[in-house]
Amino acid sequence: MRGAWAGLAAAAAALGLALAVSVWRRRPRPVREVLFFPSQLVCTEALLAEAAAPGAGSRPCPCPLPRGDCALSRLLRRLLSARRSLELCLFAFSSPQLACAVQLLHRRGVRVRVVTDAQSMAMKGSQIGLLRHAGIQVRHDQESGYMHHKFAIVDGRMLLTGSLNWTTQAIQSNRENVLVLEDEEYVKAFLDEFERIWEEFDPRNYRSFPKDNK
Amino acid sequence: MRGAWAGLAAAAAALGLALAVSVWRRRPRPVREVLFFPSQLVCTEALLAEAAAPGAGSRPCPCPLPRGDCALSRLLRRLLSARRSLELCLFAFSSPQLACAVQLLHRRGVRVRVVTDAQSMAMKGSQIGLLRHAGIQVRHDQESGYMHHKFAIVDGRMLLTGSLNWTTQAIQSNRENVLVLEDEEYVKAFLDEFERIWEEFDPRNYRSFPKDNK
Repeated sequence: MRGAWAGLAAAAAALGLALAVSVWRRRPRPVREVLFFPSQLVCTEALLAEAAAPGAGSRPCPCPLPRGDCALSRLLRRLLSARRSLELCLFAFSSPQLACAVQLLHRRGVRVRVVTDAQSMAMKGSQIGLLRHAGIQVRHDQESGYMHHKFAIVDGRMLLTGSLNWTTQAIQSNRENVLVLEDEEYVKAFLDEFERIWEEFDPRNYRSFPKDNK
Repeated sequence: MRGAWAGLAAAAAALGLALAVSVWRRRPRPVREVLFFPSQLVCTEALLAEAAAPGAGSRPCPCPLPRGDCALSRLLRRLLSARRSLELCLFAFSSPQLACAVQLLHRRGVRVRVVTDAQSMAMKGSQIGLLRHAGIQVRHDQESGYMHHKFAIVDGRMLLTGSLNWTTQAIQSNRENVLVLEDEEYVKAFLDEFERIWEEFDPRNYRSFPKDNK
């Protein structure tokens, strides 16, 4: 009788172990990616249309650009995966495609917060005005130095950071990099930095006189 | 007799396991760090003097700056840990302290290679001329876009990358970040990018006419 119980216990232990291994193996591997730019020029309309209304991405786009995968489309895809929150801490933001993706997320109910550089956002082509007009919260510095970060945090779980300003020039012409990491430790460090800056750049702290010359 | 052998085998197995665990636990944890700027202003003379000649760092420095740890001193320490190679891929390089560290590594026999942006290296305060004068290999772009990366690879094992250009303005006044990672996968991706650019920027490929206006 004692032998039968021992056999049963051993079988249960083996089953438990097999189950644990199976769950562990099915757990999606954290994202670890590096995107290098300049990005090939491809059509991103289908990607944005699909994110706006499922099924719409299958309609043909009349533009002459080739279809396919590129660093920009991969960056867009990572951003469009946001379901709850998106923090952006960007020196310069003038890319229409990336602005389109951010507005789309805002319309979808994702809480978007943007921190940017006051001098850069006043430059021609900046998308910051459009984002504000769409109702997205934006805060900027009033410092003598630049708010020179270029990072994004998706759903408090994925960090995108590197040398890339979100401009068409940077995407299409410069040598740039963006690291994509699903890594709790790094995400926490950047989220803490974002919250620090967000509080510091609270409009209640803005001075009324113009920014000092940089 | 058979029991004695079995006991001996079990003891050997236990000893082997204990040894393996001890080696594994003593293996240094891979570096994972984030440096945020602006950096506090501290004296870095002792750090550089110590790296140039062990023992020299204990001599008092007459400068009025406080002593202590800061983002710049931590960045310097990571760089000065190089023993074999240092790859630098930097849009702008005008920080005298960082240039001093790079020259010191070069004198110590570390193979230093620098890739930079042609337009930026022609700007006032750039340290690139000094590095070249010291015999360090430098290559630059001849493209219409910017060579906008800001990364370093130490001994082919540690990656330092982020938003920080190596300028005094960026270090002392801007909001910036540098990720420090000892991570084989990311280091390989950036080293491959460096080697690609290094080959592309081979002086034999330079055109003789001036760079197009950006």
